[in-house]
Amino acid sequence: MNIAQVATRRYTTKAFDPARKISADDLAALRTLLRNAPSSVNSQPWHFVIAGSDDARGRIADTLKVDFPYNEAKVRNASHVVVLCARESLDSAHLAAILEQEQADGRFATPDARAAQEKSRGFYVALHQQQLKDEAAWMDRQVYLALGTLLLGAGALGIDACPIEGFSDAAVDAALGLKEKGLHSRVMVALGYHSEEDFNARLPKSRLPEQAVITEI
Amino acid sequence: MNIAQVATRRYTTKAFDPARKISADDLAALRTLLRNAPSSVNSQPWHFVIAGSDDARGRIADTLKVDFPYNEAKVRNASHVVVLCARESLDSAHLAAILEQEQADGRFATPDARAAQEKSRGFYVALHQQQLKDEAAWMDRQVYLALGTLLLGAGALGIDACPIEGFSDAAVDAALGLKEKGLHSRVMVALGYHSEEDFNARLPKSRLPEQAVITEI
Repeated sequence: MNIAQVATRRYTTKAFDPARKISADDLAALRTLLRNAPSSVNSQPWHFVIAGSDDARGRIADTLKVDFPYNEAKVRNASHVVVLCARESLDSAHLAAILEQEQADGRFATPDARAAQEKSRGFYVALHQQQLKDEAAWMDRQVYLALGTLLLGAGALGIDACPIEGFSDAAVDAALGLKEKGLHSRVMVALGYHSEEDFNARLPKSRLPEQAVITEI
Repeated sequence: MNIAQVATRRYTTKAFDPARKISADDLAALRTLLRNAPSSVNSQPWHFVIAGSDDARGRIADTLKVDFPYNEAKVRNASHVVVLCARESLDSAHLAAILEQEQADGRFATPDARAAQEKSRGFYVALHQQQLKDEAAWMDRQVYLALGTLLLGAGALGIDACPIEGFSDAAVDAALGLKEKGLHSRVMVALGYHSEEDFNARLPKSRLPEQAVITEI
């Protein structure tokens, strides 16, 4: 199946088969997709919590009971739930860690190349932190870039997925101890394989016509 | 190549070969990827302008001369540039168009199913418009979900890509007449094939270690 077919066929799974688990190889592929997702100026302003145990998924599911009951079973019955988190800020320690990693990975042939990269990233970080004052929203957008990577990647691997915005971020942060780690849950994805109860597996996908959303000039 | 290998190998192309153009088949695949990108409650709060002509890419490139000169040649020499736009708002006409499309595509077996979908989407739209008051940021996040889809999809098709945040959205909106259409440019992607001058094609990719960005629980 080519990637356009994957994009056409993947859909939002509404009910998961609790008996089917994602294989270790496929989980490794999902981790590779997440870790290698692109982000503005390679800022990687994120952390991904993969809840595979019944206990971990249960802690997330418990937060959904009152206000988002329709999402509870998805989280309980999925094989794994990825909680995509943004960092609280792009602090100097994080930026230094990225620069050191780029150095260690061999991206800087000269000290000038390293300085240029530090300056370029610093310009965009300062732009969002100080001028546009939208650092959190900027980081959130990068998290959704990773979300897009994860959803298409899961589709290519034949893994069903349900992206979930319907949860209390404060409740999930508390349930997983995220705030203490300087993280903030932004969106979740339940992953696994659909069950017979998944009505959406039998419904056609719907999108606005191409001419309504695409203009070629 | 499997999708995890695609994610590992794709990278940000810094210089494009102006002589190499994306084929009609691959362009169709890119349109399919964009159109089928997922979005919260199927809101599709976006429009994608694909600039393939020299004139169209030139108009975008002209906006970059003063403040973002390092991005000008990427736009001029790329085969195509996709400008990913957000809508000004999720107005009632747009929401009605989505509901009609879902009806036409056969997603509602009963009037109750249609009403439930309208109510569910309306809940989340109202949540962002009225309670969280983050409608624009919410739509922007969906645009980045499409961006992630496009970048991984292009990689799978063997197309090089350079996502670009470094531009003046107001200038690009003016150059392409987007505001009159109720659209707002949020991010661009130059697409095509790298040239010999692309230093980044020869550098290793760098990402923080898996344990720094992923926790399994």
